[in-house]
Amino acid sequence: MALIVQKYGGTSVANPERIQAVATKVKSARDQHHDIVVVVSAMAGETNRLIELAKTMQPCPRPRELDVIMATGEQVTIALLALALEHINCPACSYTGFQVPITTDSAYGKARIKDIAVAKMRADLAAGKVVIVAGFQGIDALGNITTLGRGGSDTTGVALAAALKADECQIYTDVDGVYTTDPRIEPRARRLDRITFEEMLEMASLGSKVLQIRSVEFAGKYNVPLRVLSSFTPGPGTLITLEDQQVEEVRIAGIAFSRDEAKLTVLGVPDRPGVAYGILGPIAAANIEVDMIVQNIAPDGSTTDLTFTVHRNDYQRAFEILQANANKLGSREISGDNRIAKLSLVGVGMRSHAGIAAKMFASLAKEGINIRMISTSEIKISVVVDEKYLELGVRTLHDAFELDRQDVNN
Amino acid sequence: MALIVQKYGGTSVANPERIQAVATKVKSARDQHHDIVVVVSAMAGETNRLIELAKTMQPCPRPRELDVIMATGEQVTIALLALALEHINCPACSYTGFQVPITTDSAYGKARIKDIAVAKMRADLAAGKVVIVAGFQGIDALGNITTLGRGGSDTTGVALAAALKADECQIYTDVDGVYTTDPRIEPRARRLDRITFEEMLEMASLGSKVLQIRSVEFAGKYNVPLRVLSSFTPGPGTLITLEDQQVEEVRIAGIAFSRDEAKLTVLGVPDRPGVAYGILGPIAAANIEVDMIVQNIAPDGSTTDLTFTVHRNDYQRAFEILQANANKLGSREISGDNRIAKLSLVGVGMRSHAGIAAKMFASLAKEGINIRMISTSEIKISVVVDEKYLELGVRTLHDAFELDRQDVNN
Repeated sequence: MALIVQKYGGTSVANPERIQAVATKVKSARDQHHDIVVVVSAMAGETNRLIELAKTMQPCPRPRELDVIMATGEQVTIALLALALEHINCPACSYTGFQVPITTDSAYGKARIKDIAVAKMRADLAAGKVVIVAGFQGIDALGNITTLGRGGSDTTGVALAAALKADECQIYTDVDGVYTTDPRIEPRARRLDRITFEEMLEMASLGSKVLQIRSVEFAGKYNVPLRVLSSFTPGPGTLITLEDQQVEEVRIAGIAFSRDEAKLTVLGVPDRPGVAYGILGPIAAANIEVDMIVQNIAPDGSTTDLTFTVHRNDYQRAFEILQANANKLGSREISGDNRIAKLSLVGVGMRSHAGIAAKMFASLAKEGINIRMISTSEIKISVVVDEKYLELGVRTLHDAFELDRQDVNN
Repeated sequence: MALIVQKYGGTSVANPERIQAVATKVKSARDQHHDIVVVVSAMAGETNRLIELAKTMQPCPRPRELDVIMATGEQVTIALLALALEHINCPACSYTGFQVPITTDSAYGKARIKDIAVAKMRADLAAGKVVIVAGFQGIDALGNITTLGRGGSDTTGVALAAALKADECQIYTDVDGVYTTDPRIEPRARRLDRITFEEMLEMASLGSKVLQIRSVEFAGKYNVPLRVLSSFTPGPGTLITLEDQQVEEVRIAGIAFSRDEAKLTVLGVPDRPGVAYGILGPIAAANIEVDMIVQNIAPDGSTTDLTFTVHRNDYQRAFEILQANANKLGSREISGDNRIAKLSLVGVGMRSHAGIAAKMFASLAKEGINIRMISTSEIKISVVVDEKYLELGVRTLHDAFELDRQDVNN
């Protein structure tokens, strides 16, 4: 008998029929004598409806009151699911964030969980009940209603699993697991049976938006085994877990990519301390997030070039900031390109294996894909290429590392 | 500077425009330097929508979970109103039932308020904020969400006024006050400037559904001046208050009536102790509410007739119960009539003035209206007549007691 936390997202509870289907799934897990805690989101569309309603009152609604409104979405779903479960003779009890309570800080709209009280849930589980908890919401120390921000129900699920020391946290979604890359680009993309927390973080932050990043960090920190699986099709999904120590061979988890990139280069600035701050300080002050940063020494030895990438939406603004600072920086020229894409090879295996980068660059070169920037970390290698090469690049790398073959990489 | 509790019902907050109109009303009261606590209901239609949603899960939804769902209706409205107020530069803060907290017993769907904590509200008022509280809801000692039942927002308003020792509790609704009778039946019906709590209770329970009865009882018990007024048309409304000691003259507040009546008579039962219980015990056991009860001695002196009224919907069931018990009761005959109506003259003045009943009966007789039953209390006289005489009876009495004239009765 295991203790399992199951989390169902908005599309899984989008209408009464789907809520009934979730109830059936929950009951069947309960019938296998597992203790079940269920976390649910608001019915799909409900959160947007509530935001629109709030906007009729204030174009930019004050966060405290917006959270009061938003929290009602999950409150409806928990009670509906409890009713659906009882209707099929499965005793259940619902809890809002304040009822658990799930204590958070006071950052309305993006609160962080500080504490979860488990006493009531434990008592209900001991009494044979399914416990249903509203995702996405909590309460601060002063009793104000808070929300964790979009996708926060994943975080609620993982945090509950950690607090309850659950055996597994299952995240039900509309995809049946984590893939080696996006199947819409590479039809031979393969569902991974396992992936490490670190790999998942790289895959998620690079565009494979299966899980909210924060929930994966949380799961990694508290070592909660996390499983992504589909609400609609049966299957084992993908288990996200600590690194498997036995795996010795090269292990590439997959290829992440992002289209929403733009790069900016400041050419010929004097090569002296503080130049990077001089360039990027005003960018950060304008709240523009910078992703990759690469600095080269220019041929003349006394000046340097600095290139960085931003979200494509911020390209124009970033360009203007650089130009406004050009004199102060003493730069020769500002150049930029907002038609680029980023490809990343992700895998814990590259830590201990040389030659991965070389193989990656060779494969791309063979297809005539020019690499514009390179950046590496412990478990990933990212390259920036012209946007038009995105699909070809993904397929080339998928093929080169034989990611479609179970035996090679997993 | 007064402390005023204002309560706005579902039609007053039915859509964003109306919520903005409420905000304007609240701000104008605030601008007169009053401290304002606002209680709001769910947007009209929302409670029914939520009930229907719950019923898709369970035909008869379990009350605990139904209350969790229902409570979201008011939760949305309080935050929308807070946003609307802030948008017109009137600082405001919203509170759900659990945030105040408003503590109730655990009778889901019909909970009773046990305690209201005023500290947070007092602090907000002192800080110059409008306090907005969700009507209709509370929390029990175990932290479960409860609702007070339909119309419970009135009760919340009065209870808050009592707890805060407010100067007045204003109930905004879609009528502009309490009338001497229903203007749809008697166009000369007049809005009362004042009415006593006791009169209001008789008027309300007899069919003038302006306020929830419980809220009037509550207001009377704690001596909270209650004012009924319209959200849509300006005017002073009707003040419901303790009996005015100065009023010496005959004072009839109005004429209440009810169409939903049926009467049943058990004829010729032996006149011995316990016979009323023998008749009405099985009726009560079947959860049928009995209103008027009249017992006469039959001409032969050894048997008696007992007549009582029930809601028309219960008529058939009550009739069958009496027939099933006929042998045991030793009754001669069971008769009944479900086409009757009840007319009631209500007024504290009749306490100290003889002749009111006589005048009432004479007026009805003059119009050929036969009285089938009579029942009296301290401040009302009720008669049962054939249903067809309802409108004529109301108009006859309104005219006889000159209720259209301000100077005579108010």
